[in-house]
Amino acid sequence: MARINDNYLKLQAGYLFPEISRRVNAFAEANPEQAAKMIRCGIGDVTEPLPEAARNAMKAAVDELGQRATFRGYGPEQGYDFLRTAIAENNYRAEGIDVADDEIFVSDGSKCDTGNILDIFGPGNTIAITDPVYPVYVDTNVMAGNTGPADDQGAYDGLVYLPCTAKNAFVPAVPDRPVDLIYLCYPNNPTGATATREQLEAWVAFACQNDSIILYDAAYEAFIKEDGIPHSIYEIEGARTCAIEFRSFSMNAS
Amino acid sequence: MARINDNYLKLQAGYLFPEISRRVNAFAEANPEQAAKMIRCGIGDVTEPLPEAARNAMKAAVDELGQRATFRGYGPEQGYDFLRTAIAENNYRAEGIDVADDEIFVSDGSKCDTGNILDIFGPGNTIAITDPVYPVYVDTNVMAGNTGPADDQGAYDGLVYLPCTAKNAFVPAVPDRPVDLIYLCYPNNPTGATATREQLEAWVAFACQNDSIILYDAAYEAFIKEDGIPHSIYEIEGARTCAIEFRSFSMNAS
Repeated sequence: MARINDNYLKLQAGYLFPEISRRVNAFAEANPEQAAKMIRCGIGDVTEPLPEAARNAMKAAVDELGQRATFRGYGPEQGYDFLRTAIAENNYRAEGIDVADDEIFVSDGSKCDTGNILDIFGPGNTIAITDPVYPVYVDTNVMAGNTGPADDQGAYDGLVYLPCTAKNAFVPAVPDRPVDLIYLCYPNNPTGATATREQLEAWVAFACQNDSIILYDAAYEAFIKEDGIPHSIYEIEGARTCAIEFRSFSMNAS
Repeated sequence: MARINDNYLKLQAGYLFPEISRRVNAFAEANPEQAAKMIRCGIGDVTEPLPEAARNAMKAAVDELGQRATFRGYGPEQGYDFLRTAIAENNYRAEGIDVADDEIFVSDGSKCDTGNILDIFGPGNTIAITDPVYPVYVDTNVMAGNTGPADDQGAYDGLVYLPCTAKNAFVPAVPDRPVDLIYLCYPNNPTGATATREQLEAWVAFACQNDSIILYDAAYEAFIKEDGIPHSIYEIEGARTCAIEFRSFSMNAS
């Protein structure tokens, strides 16, 4: 008899987002004059149509695929070389960050990636996750069997939660014990908090000391407007030996 | 210290495709007049540019995304309703196959899917795989820890191989013992062999009897030209209770 992955039974299905929705609706009903001003920190979505430059590039690519002389078949598994070069050059080297073309891996999306990356890690790792954070990090670890069951608060046994609170300005410090995998997301989803260079230096030093891996989600880096705030973990010396960075082209600050 | 998934160490990295390449090159060199006639059964790729109808539809979709009134943000996780309806209607119901719109799941590709589907199954399943077959089925099971090490022939301990040979016309019969997960791919990648209705009926009966799940890869169904050969496992009575079918829109017979 085929057996299912019973780790899925631990998932607090829809725990977070329905609760956000419930509170948003209750607040909006009680405070109609404030409702239009609410910043919704639940499931996000894009708000603007695609700009002309992007549309033209996509149409040119479609035409390229329509001609025998220029069409491309399956790309290399790490992504087309021209794209990897463009990303390494424009998103990293132009900012003074040392990243080689062949260190870029182009996938079908950073959401899938942040889940699928767990495939390369073994069982038994201690995993630290800021709280709150993008629920995909937690849920994929639950599904992969890297946690125990959830408690009454929805916190999973075996995860090391790093609370983001007003006291730490929503940027928790490194933990007081070794951990093996560390999820960081700055600017943070959902709080928007960013980490300073000193804070990221402390994480890199911690990771190097403990042979930990930092999974650094920089999906929202385009929203950083303040000088001096790192856009990439690779701006920190030593990060190349301990960090994997995720980026997305679906998040853009206009 | 972060630990990696050491199941990857079992992978016979590049075992199959470099060997095919080596033999193809050796044959072509020894038989230059035959080289142009070889059918390469290694890694496939598309051979024709995109047709005009597909290009026009893609450009119209790009324009739709460029207008505030018509642009779409993140789609529903199961796929856009209009797309699920079109697939269920045109690929199944128009062929007399009973499939509802909400039974269609649109993903980012059937290659990823045939690997990622393993996430929903638990450990300890006995897995049957035709031999030869699309290497992704085997390799993803190796990476997921569902096999032991490979032997000298590259066969993994713990998998039930179903040899495709001239004797069985490259369509193996059901095994003589219960198995839990069964990978079938018809038309087969790489042999091109198809299964008859009677052969598929035997598999569905076997799966129902043993509470097994059939993972049916129909990526190449468009290449079936012979009347009476099923294009979908769901043409077989009982398959709805025991089979998951994968399809692809990147494979089309022109």
